[in-house]
Amino acid sequence: MATMQQVAERAGVSIATVSFVVNGTKHVTDETRARVEAAMRDLGYARHHAASALARGRTNILALLYPALESDLSGSGVQFFTGAAERARERGYTLVLWPARNDAGEIAELTATGLVDGVVLMEVQLDDPRVDLLRASTTPFALIGRTADPSGTAWVDIDFEATVDDAVDRLVALGHRAIAYVEGEPDGRSSPHGGAARAHAAYLAAAARHGFAPRLLACAGDAGAGRSLASRLVDEGSDATALVVVNEHAAPGILAELAQRGRTIPADLSVLSIGTSPGAADPALARMPSPGAELGRLGVDAVIDRIENPDRPLPQTLIPCGPPEGDSLGPAPRPAG
Amino acid sequence: MATMQQVAERAGVSIATVSFVVNGTKHVTDETRARVEAAMRDLGYARHHAASALARGRTNILALLYPALESDLSGSGVQFFTGAAERARERGYTLVLWPARNDAGEIAELTATGLVDGVVLMEVQLDDPRVDLLRASTTPFALIGRTADPSGTAWVDIDFEATVDDAVDRLVALGHRAIAYVEGEPDGRSSPHGGAARAHAAYLAAAARHGFAPRLLACAGDAGAGRSLASRLVDEGSDATALVVVNEHAAPGILAELAQRGRTIPADLSVLSIGTSPGAADPALARMPSPGAELGRLGVDAVIDRIENPDRPLPQTLIPCGPPEGDSLGPAPRPAG
Repeated sequence: MATMQQVAERAGVSIATVSFVVNGTKHVTDETRARVEAAMRDLGYARHHAASALARGRTNILALLYPALESDLSGSGVQFFTGAAERARERGYTLVLWPARNDAGEIAELTATGLVDGVVLMEVQLDDPRVDLLRASTTPFALIGRTADPSGTAWVDIDFEATVDDAVDRLVALGHRAIAYVEGEPDGRSSPHGGAARAHAAYLAAAARHGFAPRLLACAGDAGAGRSLASRLVDEGSDATALVVVNEHAAPGILAELAQRGRTIPADLSVLSIGTSPGAADPALARMPSPGAELGRLGVDAVIDRIENPDRPLPQTLIPCGPPEGDSLGPAPRPAG
Repeated sequence: MATMQQVAERAGVSIATVSFVVNGTKHVTDETRARVEAAMRDLGYARHHAASALARGRTNILALLYPALESDLSGSGVQFFTGAAERARERGYTLVLWPARNDAGEIAELTATGLVDGVVLMEVQLDDPRVDLLRASTTPFALIGRTADPSGTAWVDIDFEATVDDAVDRLVALGHRAIAYVEGEPDGRSSPHGGAARAHAAYLAAAARHGFAPRLLACAGDAGAGRSLASRLVDEGSDATALVVVNEHAAPGILAELAQRGRTIPADLSVLSIGTSPGAADPALARMPSPGAELGRLGVDAVIDRIENPDRPLPQTLIPCGPPEGDSLGPAPRPAG
């Protein structure tokens, strides 16, 4: 399908002029109109892309479904979207971010419309009614994340188990034994977020493997909640020497409040944030960066694979977070006395 | 147009069952199929929403255009999207985030497809070729932001002039005279962002009005760049007593680095961030919050007004940022000696 840009180039006119001719919104000279119409004919440009695409049963539009009204899209979510939109463009599709509630009704509507060729679903829960609905539809789909039983679906996911293992191993190698885990609070959905549940389990397993007592902490996902949690740790005289934080937006607040309360980071306490988006990261915060943009790209590749080559094996890919970057990670302090 | 949810309720079955019947993806009993089909008939449910919508010339889909591959969508941008998506849903539309380059070609394509009933454009430049294209199309549109000459368009915008005036007046009332201004770096586009240009001019005008020398600073839009800038101010022995920051993502880094370099905030230095998204705000940072979600809602109202009541006057609305919240704002320090 030719683009308006190509028509403009062939006719030697601006895109605006092509738009005037296509939409009939402004007078152009007969000579210019004839040139634009000839270019449209030569290139097979269709006036009504949507109508002709529907007639062919294809729109070349993909929807990235995100529960935007329930979860704040930010950090890693933005990285997924940007990577996915870029990859879709490279492969001749347009990817749009489609706000859909966590219930399944809106997804059933969307897949029934025929407006999109495929769907990428984010924020996947262990038990997710939206995935059941997508399985019941004829719309090709892929997941960023995965359900408790991910067989029979196309998915790409962060390898939270390997990443948390790696984080705890690094801290233990630096002499830490009092390693606490800071996660988000439950988000009120019927089933937990798959990544959060797998990371939590991996921390408990790593603690058992290394023989230290697990210390579980949780706070809401913003800098203020991170400050409150850090303040409570200081007030209670916590003897934790390291925090593994799987709560992207609370981590900067934790770090800032510890510094403000006189803790020297990392001499007194190491803070290691996992799954943090690389974009706006603070170099003072040690983080294992989320492979967000790469996951978005692979999610798009996976759904296009389902659309164009439905007989191929289902794409199923795990990617760990990157190695730690940033300053708040160091050896455990020597015990006092 | 009835929804699949309504069909499910009337037929007394799950949404998944309705989806099976509509898509023919799984066997259901003849009795159940008959019940679902009766409910679809009774409610006038159309199997192919998109096709029938196009036949009517309406899809009830709105596109929020964002240059996602060039500008990181975060903070206030997410607030626009969330407010807009919520308002669209309330008014019976679906709003999707549509990544579009800053050049006009993709917008010409989109408006020519007929896939969307209307467009809301974000990140508006003073001189914006995308707005010219939208004017040339038949697609109803509204702007979040505005061009240098905003006449003849529907728009909602942050009142940066009033907000910067208010910020400088408050600082002067607190005894500050050495008030520096921290903005973002140019984003490489052909024409500056309208809000950034208007805020910059308002700061210069306020400095002239109060008779103090303007001090212009700029850094990239992330915490690391904010830290570098703060570090430079400390190293150079800057005597600024207040920073007005119109660089949402640099502000937390500025604050954190000043604290780390031993400055007591706000006793030594006030930091006031303008247009910051209220969501993940750090209570330690004084900010005049962006009316982001409200602008998103009003942008959707404006475009729906253009779709449904094209003869009404063009909606054109300015909203200032809210009054300062947070801790980093205080009286000017007494001069030493």
